[in-house]
This record gives sequence, structure tokens and C-alpha cells, in this order.
Amino acid sequence: MFERDRRTETVAADSERKRARKLTKRGLRVKVYQREREFRTAGGLAVRDITAEVQEAVVESGISDGIACVYSPHTTCCVRVNEFEQGFLEDFATMLRRLVPNDSYYAHDDWDRRTENMCPEDMEAANGHAHCMGMLLGTAGESIPVCDGELSLGTWQRVLFIELDRQRDRRWIVKVVGT
Amino acid sequence: MFERDRRTETVAADSERKRARKLTKRGLRVKVYQREREFRTAGGLAVRDITAEVQEAVVESGISDGIACVYSPHTTCCVRVNEFEQGFLEDFATMLRRLVPNDSYYAHDDWDRRTENMCPEDMEAANGHAHCMGMLLGTAGESIPVCDGELSLGTWQRVLFIELDRQRDRRWIVKVVGT
Amino acid sequence: MFERDRRTETVAADSERKRARKLTKRGLRVKVYQREREFRTAGGLAVRDITAEVQEAVVESGISDGIACVYSPHTTCCVRVNEFEQGFLEDFATMLRRLVPNDSYYAHDDWDRRTENMCPEDMEAANGHAHCMGMLLGTAGESIPVCDGELSLGTWQRVLFIELDRQRDRRWIVKVVGT
Repeated sequence: MFERDRRTETVAADSERKRARKLTKRGLRVKVYQREREFRTAGGLAVRDITAEVQEAVVESGISDGIACVYSPHTTCCVRVNEFEQGFLEDFATMLRRLVPNDSYYAHDDWDRRTENMCPEDMEAANGHAHCMGMLLGTAGESIPVCDGELSLGTWQRVLFIELDRQRDRRWIVKVVGT
Repeated sequence: MFERDRRTETVAADSERKRARKLTKRGLRVKVYQREREFRTAGGLAVRDITAEVQEAVVESGISDGIACVYSPHTTCCVRVNEFEQGFLEDFATMLRRLVPNDSYYAHDDWDRRTENMCPEDMEAANGHAHCMGMLLGTAGESIPVCDGELSLGTWQRVLFIELDRQRDRRWIVKVVGT
Repeated sequence: MFERDRRTETVAADSERKRARKLTKRGLRVKVYQREREFRTAGGLAVRDITAEVQEAVVESGISDGIACVYSPHTTCCVRVNEFEQGFLEDFATMLRRLVPNDSYYAHDDWDRRTENMCPEDMEAANGHAHCMGMLLGTAGESIPVCDGELSLGTWQRVLFIELDRQRDRRWIVKVVGT
């Protein structure tokens, strides 16, 4: 069912009035904070839960209200928010391998043709499929609201660093802007 | 056709010069605003146009220039910007169900195996496919530029809240940071 | 392999301590900057590398630390960060056409049914598949951390403007918020 925006709500109107938080903090000086972390991934659609480290960075920033941009500076990784549950992560890997099989032909891995961005590491282990997976999954990072000094994550939401390529040294960045 | 970045443009150079808006507002005090809305979704790939409510929040924030982060704190929903047109929304649902069928096996829904994040509601209605759809669609939210007190949406762009799971109580958050 | 967040790292602990950048700039006045660029795309899954122009805008903003939101105000385009390499871009186009074929039925293009958002241009060239591709790829834009006056892009990361529709006049916006 596709619903156009309506101002009047019959179902949730009361709770909405209670829950709607309206806060504008004006006249404050901005704070900008950055933290970077480095680690080695396991490779092969490895997923790492980085929630505690991101939250730690938010606390350290001293920023109570703003936006946290958690970012992967790699072309075959991404940061995504979803549940960390073994079964689901297996389902996710199965889906991704089905939609983007790594045994197809990828021009990116065809060293008889490729003339750009020559990367010796890629010649050892083809990663054309990992680039395609990255594009399919979306952006390099996630932007998450920060409220009262905490990431506004829902009950089951965790911040996940996803490795689409082989085992590699990787890093992620969190940038927080707010007050 | 894949085009490298070029500084000189033959086609759009004139209009570009006219349209390029360059404004840096310096020395202003930052404003941070948050609003949260709650409602009950229809379930089954329901899409709700929340544009007017998000725009209303931007007006209420008093922020004329900045970034609005519209965010779903749920693992089986997301906020996306696209056209709100019945035919397209049907096409979108058809595509999503074709790429992520809900009658496949999902380990997330296998209660003989699952030991983590036990959620009684999930036992009534399996939602492994909805988590996979969420990952495939991308991030939990969208970041949209705000200019002159308005969301910088294009002609056909609308802010959409997408329910990938069954009918549920949901909420979305908009956080605006700027001046 | 799926790894829960751990505070102690055996592999990268030393380099992590060295590399972890912790900077909070407090008490500064915020800067907000916007730039818009217009150009004509080539059509047919054309990809344009706009990195230099985005970086130029960041320099012009005078913002040294913050977040850059690079945004497409179109429903059949998006901005994405990945490698600009001819082979990969071909692989990407092949994958997208395989997952979202343009010769399927799209209700969005069915002018016997459609009653909303009537757009004469769309009647000439069907673009239901391009809308679906846009949803599959994710958000309209990308948020990228800015540090020391530069986009925090990794070695192979480039900012790409992706046209999913036919040849058209398009524009992109970059909004930078920071100090």
C-alpha cells in the first residue's frame, strides 16, 4: 500500500504528540570531531560490529546533538547499519553471492585489457565482483543522528563494517558535527 | 560512456556559470534540530510519502542552510528519496520481491538454529527477507541538502519511508544541522 | 566470518594507536557552503568522475573539517563513491542491466494506466527501469568526511555521478558543513 503524506493520523496521533521531540539548539558554537580506526579484516564477506567504538568516539567528541558520518575510505568495503545476528549475516552473504557471483567474467580483472589504476595486489586476487557488490549495496558510509550524546540507533541496529574483498588492512572514519 | 572529470565544458558552460551558486556563510552560530514522528505502517512493502512532514520540520528548525539527515531507526525499514507514483512503486515492489524472494530459506528465521537477539514478534512472522532487502537497498537514511530553508529536492523527488516487513509501529527521525 | 566488536586488537593495535586521529575543534563558528554544477549526461548508464570539481568546492568553502554532502536532485541519477576504471564501469553496467532489465514491463511506463506525475519527456523514452535501478543503488547522494580541507577519499575512491536514464541535462549539489 502506497500512502501519500497526510497530516492527520488516526492510529498513532496521541503517542506521536508525546514522542515528537522538537529541539532546536541555537546560538551554540559548533564542534567537529574525527576519529579513525584501523584493523585487519577476515576477508570473504566478513562483517564486523563497530558500534561500541563508534559510540565511544561520539562520547569522546563531547558532541551531544548532531550527525555522525561513519565512513569507509575503501572501494570494496562499506559501513552499513543493520542487525548483527549470525543467521542474518549468512543470509546476507548468500544473497550477495547469488546476485553478484564471483566466478563471472569481470573486465576489471581482465589483465589482457586493463590499462588503468594498475594495482599489483589486485593481480594476485581478482576483486571485480567486490566492486560490483559495493555499488549494489550503496554508499561508502552511513550518516546517523546523534542525540543526547548517543547514536540514535534502534533496538536491533548495529553499525557494521563490511569487507567485500579478501583479507586486508582496512580503516574506518567517524566524523561528528554538532554541538 | 564513462567520462573523466574535465574543467572545461562545451555543452553547459554558460548555464553553469549562471547557475553555480557559491555561498559560504561564515561566522554564524550553528543550529541543531531534531524531530521524531511515529506511525503505523501498512506492511508488505508499504511506501509512505513523508516529504511534507520533513519539510515542515525544516521550517520549524529555523535552519536556512545545512544538511537534513532523515533516518529510520529500524533494521527492516529505510528512508529513500525517489518519485511517488503508484506504477513505479509497484515496479519497485515487484523488483525487490524478484531479487529477494520471501519464500527462500533464511537462517535468520530458522528457530531450530537461532540463538541470538531472540525476538518473540519475529517468531510469529519471519522477516529474514526484509533484513536482506534492507541491506540491498542501502543505508537506513538519506542526507539531503537544505538551502534557503527548503529541502533541495528535485522536481519529482519525494522523501519516502519504506516498510519492508509486516504492519508495525515505526518512527523516523529528522536531524538538521546548519545555520 | 562475523566478528563482534572487541576493544582489544592483536593485529593492528600499535598502528591503530599511532593512526587514530582524535580532534575535536570546539568553540568555532560554523561555516555552511553550497555549490551547484550543471552538465549534460551521455545517457545509457553514463558515469562521470566529478571528484576534482567536488574537491575544488571544498577548497573554495574554506571549510577544513566537516561533512560534504554530494547530492543528485534527480530520481534517475545518483552520486556514488567508487573506483573510476573503464573495466569496472562496464562490469557495473552489465550487472545493473542483468538485475534490472529495461525490456521488462514497468507500470511506470504504461501510459494506458498512468494518471500521476504526467511528464511529456517520459512518454518519449520510458524510464521505469531507471527508477528501479536508482532504488536498488541506494540514496541520491553520498556524505564524505572533510579533513584538513580535503575530502577523506581512499586511494582508489572517486566521486561518480551516475546517469541511469537517457541523455539529459542534469545537476549536482555539494553542501559542506563544518569549521
